[in-house]
Amino acid sequence: MQIAELRIHPIAIADPPLRSSYGLHAPYALRTIVELESNDGVIGISETYGGDTQVRQLEALRPQIVGANPYRLTGALWPMVEDQAGGEARSQNWLVPGENALDALTRTYATIEVACLDLIGKTVGEPVCDLIGGRVRDGVPFSAYPFYKHAGGGGEGIDAREDEYGEALSPEAIVGQVQKMIAQYGFGSIKFKGGVLDPDVEIETIKQLYRTFGPKVPLRIDPNCAWTVETSVRVGRALAEELGRGGYLEDPTAGLENMGEVRHRLLAEAIETPLASNVAVTCFADIPRSLQLGAVQIILCDHHYWGGMRQVQHLARLARTMGFGLSMHSNTHLGISLMAMAHLAAATPHLTYACDTHYPWQSAEDEVVRGGRVPIVNGRVRIPDGAGLGVELDYDQLARGRERYSKCPYRKRDDEAQMRAQVDPNWKRILPRW
Amino acid sequence: MQIAELRIHPIAIADPPLRSSYGLHAPYALRTIVELESNDGVIGISETYGGDTQVRQLEALRPQIVGANPYRLTGALWPMVEDQAGGEARSQNWLVPGENALDALTRTYATIEVACLDLIGKTVGEPVCDLIGGRVRDGVPFSAYPFYKHAGGGGEGIDAREDEYGEALSPEAIVGQVQKMIAQYGFGSIKFKGGVLDPDVEIETIKQLYRTFGPKVPLRIDPNCAWTVETSVRVGRALAEELGRGGYLEDPTAGLENMGEVRHRLLAEAIETPLASNVAVTCFADIPRSLQLGAVQIILCDHHYWGGMRQVQHLARLARTMGFGLSMHSNTHLGISLMAMAHLAAATPHLTYACDTHYPWQSAEDEVVRGGRVPIVNGRVRIPDGAGLGVELDYDQLARGRERYSKCPYRKRDDEAQMRAQVDPNWKRILPRW
Repeated sequence: MQIAELRIHPIAIADPPLRSSYGLHAPYALRTIVELESNDGVIGISETYGGDTQVRQLEALRPQIVGANPYRLTGALWPMVEDQAGGEARSQNWLVPGENALDALTRTYATIEVACLDLIGKTVGEPVCDLIGGRVRDGVPFSAYPFYKHAGGGGEGIDAREDEYGEALSPEAIVGQVQKMIAQYGFGSIKFKGGVLDPDVEIETIKQLYRTFGPKVPLRIDPNCAWTVETSVRVGRALAEELGRGGYLEDPTAGLENMGEVRHRLLAEAIETPLASNVAVTCFADIPRSLQLGAVQIILCDHHYWGGMRQVQHLARLARTMGFGLSMHSNTHLGISLMAMAHLAAATPHLTYACDTHYPWQSAEDEVVRGGRVPIVNGRVRIPDGAGLGVELDYDQLARGRERYSKCPYRKRDDEAQMRAQVDPNWKRILPRW
Repeated sequence: MQIAELRIHPIAIADPPLRSSYGLHAPYALRTIVELESNDGVIGISETYGGDTQVRQLEALRPQIVGANPYRLTGALWPMVEDQAGGEARSQNWLVPGENALDALTRTYATIEVACLDLIGKTVGEPVCDLIGGRVRDGVPFSAYPFYKHAGGGGEGIDAREDEYGEALSPEAIVGQVQKMIAQYGFGSIKFKGGVLDPDVEIETIKQLYRTFGPKVPLRIDPNCAWTVETSVRVGRALAEELGRGGYLEDPTAGLENMGEVRHRLLAEAIETPLASNVAVTCFADIPRSLQLGAVQIILCDHHYWGGMRQVQHLARLARTMGFGLSMHSNTHLGISLMAMAHLAAATPHLTYACDTHYPWQSAEDEVVRGGRVPIVNGRVRIPDGAGLGVELDYDQLARGRERYSKCPYRKRDDEAQMRAQVDPNWKRILPRW
């Protein structure tokens, strides 16, 4: 089997005005869809971060991809994931996921790996999870992901989407948002995006979620490094009960040293809430230092930038061996990424928390998967019977996504610029803010 | 695709009277060959440790194997490799590899995994190394493996094999053995099995090897835990130059604590020779303690008891991350195991030393691979073009192996009993002996 064609589709999808410490989501999020077509006419697909840089990086690999055997390509491209620079510069404290040049190689490799696995799976008639070791579960749990947000459903003009959740800039509004999300998707845990309002308001938000949904629904808060060590400890103390029941405190502060200090100060007060991260540990090279500092207890991996599915499976065994918990980070995405996460999670025994997903924030109008949105039922994505990732491209929808991209005035994600344009012309990202 | 048949073949193969701290190799070594035949009539094969216990453990899985999809079976059997007990009892300080009940599950799982991968590869027409991530090398380096030995080529009666290497119970005889082995196979490094004669004789043996083959041929010595900490340090000091050039000191003494002490005492004398082990670290659970103690710098893994190819790939990424070197342990084996090791090593980037192999000690008369012995040229096994492992069973040879097994008076490996029967009726394994 040979790869006869590589097709790269930059698309834009409507995205609601969600807030985080990075700033504000723009009306469109950018994604890239990749097709690998074999000489037998079978097509493998993949989805990754968007924008012109991502497209250029994939395009640069064309000579190595076209003509390659998809079983061998991941071995041939191995140097792309072999030597990973860790450390502060690699982290995503400042740059949003997908915009860090230091993980360009692992991001690009992952995109190709997933497309190869889908192509192989569709050729041999087996699901991806069973190509990479075999499923240990059929349904993969995801978490509700509430955000503070402004009014609006994302998109503009004829692409303006219904504002399903409305404005949410108070604890009460977040509770309402989660109630709606759980009613629709059945999530059994809640990850709350903080780092936006005063920490006392965010503490109150978590407390209201806890009172509303009870101790059986694990709670997490992720302020994206917006806090000082002092504030992180204060929040950890205030929410010891609420986060302590199977939840975690995610990236309260920037850097492994600071994370380690928060952890040790909380432990000194007998508060055992684990710290999770998707920015302080973003590659294998970050792990020894994190262990040394006791900085991160739960690694929130993302196959999109960790170098693909097999790298995450390696990470999972490492995590289990060295005592880390493991879950998955999410970025704004469509159904192809959701299915890739689900297949990977299905074949990754040591997955100790429900995965993150932004999927509820996207709309059927933007989905490029044939048949529409991937169902999330009882908070879980089921592995479908179909081969490969179990989803195919809807080419009309893909064409609409490409058209939106062509009209979109921006070519990379910049939440800070968006915040200035839409909310506060003087807004700057400040770390730590509180 | 379904597995329609499971066939388990216990075989015995001639084995020369090799010495180690465990005792003496018996005239026959026991192996088990497994066939999985799909409903399409394709056959996947695998080779593992031998004897009745191994056969019983495989037989017990028959209900889960027959009827299963080989892509899914490894996921379904996952609990067999999930929870591994580490520690002293799991180690192979006392029990020879293949005879420890504590790794029965991982051993059995690995056997099935390799047969599934061979079956899948032969079904889709791709080599196993390309099913598990893709090759990063086409030729896998192996090491010469000299042993002190008594006269005799192994086997008895009509199965007595030519004594290709003759008796070797002195430094000079070992040098001659290695010269012959390198002339035939082209090995570029030498692993010497010690723990048999007085440590001063073994030091002299390594020194003669060094003088004969020069500093470009890395040297290792493995006394299988025969020494005290004191003796280990003394040998490490005496051979600082000889082992220090890309070689290592393997399992000089028993237990992680003692290994750590040897390491620290050598480092205190500025001797950086790394310590390798296949008995102090035999599963993931042993790794944190080894790191804590600085006990082992190079893990000598063996897919046969580490739970298969994918587990070893996970281990390799962990090893690279946490600063371990990695190579492969060997036990007496035929061409199927050799090819499984080669495919795994081809798809494992972080393999930092040439692999061990006992293969030169076996004979064409015992090989069950169609076409005869797997070639080792320039010290390397090349990945063949064929699908799966690239080797098929010779059923006449397999039948001969089964017949030898049926006549063989023992049903498990017991080097100590053999030593008493053949060399010294009062011999006991003593750890440490020196």
